[in-house]
Parts: sequence; C-alpha cells; structure tokens
Amino acid sequence: MTIIQRVEAQDIRFPTSRELDGSDAMNAAPDYSATYVILHTDADDGISGHGLTFTIGRGNEICVAAVNSLASRLEGRALEEITADMGAFWRDLTSGDSQLRWLGPEKGVIHLACAAMINAVWDLWAKREGKPVWQLLADMTPEALVQCLDFRFVSDALTPEEAIALLRRQAPTKAERVAQLREHGYPGYTTSAGWLGYSEEKMRKLCREALDEGWRHFKQKVGGDIEEDRSRARILREEIGPECTLMMDANQMWDVDEAVANMRRLAEFDPHWIEEPTSPDDILGHAEIRHRLAPIGVATGEHCHNRVMFKQLFQAEALDFCQLDAARLGGLNEVLVVLLLAAKYGIPVCPHGGGVGLCEYTQHISMFDYIAVSGSLEGRLLEYVDHLHEHFEAPVQIHRGHYRVPDAPGYGVTMKAASLAAHRYPDGSAWQSA
Amino acid sequence: MTIIQRVEAQDIRFPTSRELDGSDAMNAAPDYSATYVILHTDADDGISGHGLTFTIGRGNEICVAAVNSLASRLEGRALEEITADMGAFWRDLTSGDSQLRWLGPEKGVIHLACAAMINAVWDLWAKREGKPVWQLLADMTPEALVQCLDFRFVSDALTPEEAIALLRRQAPTKAERVAQLREHGYPGYTTSAGWLGYSEEKMRKLCREALDEGWRHFKQKVGGDIEEDRSRARILREEIGPECTLMMDANQMWDVDEAVANMRRLAEFDPHWIEEPTSPDDILGHAEIRHRLAPIGVATGEHCHNRVMFKQLFQAEALDFCQLDAARLGGLNEVLVVLLLAAKYGIPVCPHGGGVGLCEYTQHISMFDYIAVSGSLEGRLLEYVDHLHEHFEAPVQIHRGHYRVPDAPGYGVTMKAASLAAHRYPDGSAWQSA
Repeated sequence: MTIIQRVEAQDIRFPTSRELDGSDAMNAAPDYSATYVILHTDADDGISGHGLTFTIGRGNEICVAAVNSLASRLEGRALEEITADMGAFWRDLTSGDSQLRWLGPEKGVIHLACAAMINAVWDLWAKREGKPVWQLLADMTPEALVQCLDFRFVSDALTPEEAIALLRRQAPTKAERVAQLREHGYPGYTTSAGWLGYSEEKMRKLCREALDEGWRHFKQKVGGDIEEDRSRARILREEIGPECTLMMDANQMWDVDEAVANMRRLAEFDPHWIEEPTSPDDILGHAEIRHRLAPIGVATGEHCHNRVMFKQLFQAEALDFCQLDAARLGGLNEVLVVLLLAAKYGIPVCPHGGGVGLCEYTQHISMFDYIAVSGSLEGRLLEYVDHLHEHFEAPVQIHRGHYRVPDAPGYGVTMKAASLAAHRYPDGSAWQSA
Repeated sequence: MTIIQRVEAQDIRFPTSRELDGSDAMNAAPDYSATYVILHTDADDGISGHGLTFTIGRGNEICVAAVNSLASRLEGRALEEITADMGAFWRDLTSGDSQLRWLGPEKGVIHLACAAMINAVWDLWAKREGKPVWQLLADMTPEALVQCLDFRFVSDALTPEEAIALLRRQAPTKAERVAQLREHGYPGYTTSAGWLGYSEEKMRKLCREALDEGWRHFKQKVGGDIEEDRSRARILREEIGPECTLMMDANQMWDVDEAVANMRRLAEFDPHWIEEPTSPDDILGHAEIRHRLAPIGVATGEHCHNRVMFKQLFQAEALDFCQLDAARLGGLNEVLVVLLLAAKYGIPVCPHGGGVGLCEYTQHISMFDYIAVSGSLEGRLLEYVDHLHEHFEAPVQIHRGHYRVPDAPGYGVTMKAASLAAHRYPDGSAWQSA
C-alpha cells in the first residue's frame, strides 16, 4: 500500500509578463503560474505524485489556499484504495464536502484546486505502474476506464453503457494507432508567433522560424482594434502563405453581434476557426455565432469549467472544435468524460495549450483520444506554446510540428526541483531579481 | 470626499449544523457563514460600508483570501469617484485585473468575493445618502440607474436603451407602489418547516406555528429517498391544507430524467414549483425538465453564477421563477441587470433567501423590482428563512407572512459588533464552546 501522507501546495510563478509572452486582448500581461501540488507518500522508493493547475499570476495564492482546505480529504488515504474506484474518489473530492462544494459548485477556484490534486493522483498512479498516463489509460478495458468516471449531470447525453460501447469500437485497433503515433507523432499547431503584444518584426521573425521548424498551422490573437487585427492577419498570411492554416483567438472580448461583425471583416484572411469569440459561459451565444459565421469554425473550451457546460455546447451544436483544458476541468476523470461526449457528438478535441504545463498534460489526452476514443486525427490539432518547457523533468518533444509520444512514467508535469525553488512566489530568486 | 482607506475581511461562521438548520439533500450539515467585508473610510462621521457573501462553512477562509487579494483595487479610492460611474467600477473590479479574472471568470470564489465588496460599496453609498438601498435605486432616473450597469455579454438580449425604456414604463407610478408596500408589505414564503434533517414532529409543529403567524406559502426539501420525500410531502399537505402553496426544492440532486421521474411521483401533492432539479449549470437540462413537467413550474438561480447564465435561462425558456442570489451574482449591479432581463422576458424574480444575511439583502431587491422594474407582484414570493436575524443591526421585519419596508440606511447586512466578535472563526466564543 502507498499511503498519501501529506499534500503540499506551492505557489509557483514565472515572470512572463516582462516579455509579453502570452499576451492577448483580455489578458494583457500574464505571469504564467502554477498551483503546484505534491503528494508525499510513505513509500520506500520515495515515489510522489505531481500535479498542477494553471493560473496567470495574482490569485494563484487563492488556489493554493483552496488546495490546503481540501488536503484533509486526501491525506492518509491509500493510492490502491483510491484507484480501486476512481469514479467514487472523484465524486468525493469534488462534491463530498458539501461546505466546500458550495463555493463552486464544480467551477472557479475550488474546481481548479481539485484539478491539481486529482491530476497528481493520476501522476502517482501512472508512476507506480511505470507508465505514461496515456498508456495507463490505453491499457485499461473499456469497463475499467468507465469505472473511473462520474456521469452525474450528463447521463441524459451519455450513459456508462454508451461510453463502454464507444471504447469497444476502437479497442481492437488500438495497437495500430499507437504504432502510427510512434512513427509520425501527433500533429500540432503553434501560437507562439501570434501574441498580441509582439511587434511586426518579432511576428515575422517567429513565423519564419516556425515554418523552418515544420509548423503548418498558426494562431493569431485578435480582439484588439479591428484594423490592427486585420493588419496583423495580413502580416501572418503574407508570411505563412495561402496553404497554411490560420486560426484566430479573441479571448472572450466580444459580445455576440460584435463577434459576427468583426469576423466578417477578418474572413478575407481565411481563418480556420474563431476561438473564444465571447463569454465562455454563453452556450447559446456560441451557437448563434457559429450559425451566422459558417463556414468559419467556432472553437472554445479553455474556460469551460465542467462537463455539464461541454455537454450543452455539444447539444446546442455550438462549436466545431472542443478546446478542453486539462487543469480547469476537474482533472483527468472529467477530461475523459468530455472526450467521450465529444466522440459521441462527432466533435474533434483540440486541447488548450497556452500555459505552463498544459502541453505536458495534453499530449497524453490527445494521444489517448486517438488511440482509444475517437480513433481519428481528422480536424485534430494539439496546441503548442513554446514557453517554459525547460522547467520540466520530461518536457514535451516536438519534431517537425508534431508531438512525439511521451514515454516517461506519470502525467508529465513534474518540475525540476531547481525550477520550483527559483520560481516560488514571492521568495524565489526569479522574483527577488525583479 | 469619502476615501475607502482599508478593506477588512472577516471569517464569520454560525454553527447551524448542530441543529440541522438549513439541511437539504445536497447540503447535509451547513454552518451558515459569511465572508464579511467592512470598508473603513477616512470620514469624520466614521461611516463604513458593510457587505457579505454567503457560504456554508468550510471554504469561507478561501473567500476571505480572495477579498484580501482584491482589496488593493478598492483601497484609496473615493466613494464619490466610484459612484460617478458605478458601471465602470463594476467592470474594473470584476474584470480589470486579468490575472484575477482568470480564476473565474465571473464565477466561483473570485466572484463571491467581488459580490461582498461591491455590496459593501452600495451599503456605503446608501448610508452616505441616508437611504435604504431600495430607495437609493428607486430615486434614480432610468438613465442614472442604467449607467450603474455593465451590459457586456448580454447586449444580444438587452441593450442599455431597452433597459431605459423598461424603467421609464414604470417610472410615473413608482410612488403608488411604494405606498402599497408600506401598507401591505411584500409577500413572502417560508422554508423553515421543510428542512430535510427535521423530524415529523418538528415539521408539524413548525407548520402550525407558521400558519398561525400568517404564512400561506411553504417549501419542502426533496431529493433524498423518494418514498421519504412523498411521506414528508403528505405530512406538509395535511398540515397546510389544499389552499396553501407548497414548493419543492431538490438542491441539484437529480439528473434530467431522474428529475422528471421523481417529480411525477410527487405531482399528487400539487407542487407549485420544483427548485434546482439538477445541475445549476444545465440550462438545456432545465428547459427539458420544464417542458416535460408542465404545469409544475421550474425554479432555479441560487447557484446561477452570473448574468450570462440567466440570460440563457431566459432565452431557452428554461425556468418559470428566477431565484437570483444577492451575493453569488457579482453584487447589486449584476442583480439589477438580471432584474431587467427577467422583466424583458416576463419571468418573476423570487430571490434566494436561505442563508445568513440574504433576506436582509433581498428585501431591497424585490421591493425595487416591484417599484421600478416589473411593477408586478404576480407570481412573486420572497423567501424567508427564520434564522440568525438577531445578529443584524436592522433585521428584516415580518408581519403576517409579508416583509415590511426597511427604512434603515444602507443595504441591510450590517451585523452587531458583538455578533461578529462571537462568531469569528475559529477564535470566536461560539466556536470555543463547540
């Protein structure tokens, strides 16, 4: 038995705002941050579970406080008891303490904190099994996988029986797709050239570098002044040419009618999708925008806070691309429910990658989706953001615009001890020099 | 000028779980709590603004942490500068710091904290004007009131111009409705007999007392074992007779199909509405339930986290009664947007009252709604919960099942200093004796 003795939460922040990395119309100057959770165990081999939730700076201390408030629900429990019924564990952590549930429910700070803790449990489990998380999942039977999930509030759209049937459909051919991924990798796209705070010169330089590196799918931030958005779209199209894919991301800046009007002015640059055109809560608004803007696709999800919201986005035919966030949803269990819902409704999942540690998580999610859930790469692209990977013990590996299959055991976000020490807020050396 | 010098946040908790007051199927043992905010000013008269957000115990410390993280956005500002453009102030506090906005956006802990602070500003403003909040609002011109609001993400459903037109429609007859309220009060209903944790004997006793006090509208908690729910409904109907109104409240316990099946088994007791039949995020689910259960009404809102969600509940024809929460929505500014949306869509507003301080807030909201927004009492009932009022300096006054018009300046939630001291967690005397 591996007992989780102590839940440690660290406030880790990177001063990315100094270079305007990650800048967009809504988020002018983010400091990419993590509420970083370590599950310390009593195991002789010193194994520990690592998870994080992503924030953009101030307020990270509130998520740390939330992990501390939840810690007693996990401390003292055996990993083996948890993994024997992961679905029950998930329900218990997210809803078992009704006093804490009140603060969401299943949204905002308390759900972010749950995500970091739940993902740390998956990391611990996968490390104990000696497998990367995608493989831990891919090796499960459909029945075992579905037992990890909670279908509460989505059973009108997807039952456990339907989920098992979806997984069985892909099961006989899983090994073929693993082999394909090992040979070709999983296709990605880059956001690194398109941040709003970058100069024309920097954009052009980054585009050329990205093309040289093999990227063929690019994303631009919009939602500032529309003439500037047009001007930046023109620059990007000039650089990447007509064949490459250009996505646009408004980061929630527009009301419904504004989104339609502005995208009509950007349509000449042939955008593949418009991401977060309006409030992430506006399911019916996204449906309206999608209907009026077709064939431009609508993408959203990085701020979609739980499976109930995604269920409705699918039911309302409100989106073309599902951009779930690995640490805003309530950890991997809820991510898997959304993957299954997306497969049922035929919507490709293109997870959110703009943050520290998110690419490290999402490679497992997208590869598992291909191997065992959707069985398809059609319309799928995995976001890649070229920041901060050097802080992870086993960072993502990119080759010619594709993610390589990760082999390190765990869920991928274990940071180097020196990086944690240097970026602990406010006393780490990175903040002392500021 | 009145300068807000310091924002103080206190962790105030009442040990209500000891008596199972407030118990329901989802929330078995709540300790009614408040993140209590005091805006200390430099004014010679010592005026201060008081606001709170409601939680049910554990996790209140996280909301306190969130207020502390937001405090610097308010400290040093002049009340007069804020009230000169309340709409801009609201946008700034809820979204002006994009790093903090990331934690919601506009939901969960960070929005609860905003609510406490924003309501404290309204309290300070009303005290400065020497008026109760309902009157401060009722005395404004339509244009001045609408300038207090932020229509971001709802302009597709309601424009500022439409809001002004709605208010103008009622303006000429405001004084008549004020006079009516002073004479008759605002109709209420009681939840006090129906908590899930109460014995049959206690329920019968409380019903009889409530009938004697003049109550004619009652609410029962359901969502436990269906046979027990039926048994308790039978007891309540026996006590209150066929003429009184009986509402039912499931506190989010059911999936969509379960809600329909269970309410069909409770229909014989003639429920007026089913409240929170499923996840508060499930707009389309509520629409489905409403369609299948008519003529039983559907009510929800105490966990509806912002105006964007209410907008969609109205657009999707998902509810018959809007139960907005004065401290889960982002304070009074956002409450007013929802009142106007509800008026446009013809949905009666029956605010959530089950908590400490909520009745003190909502009397202002419902009376202002009647005076200046909807102009109607049809279908409106204001929840009353018979707990903890003794801790407020100017508690609600009830007469024969009706709320009396409050006259004390402010927004109503200023607590007695002794009550604050005794219930400060964990060092207050109420917690020492536990």
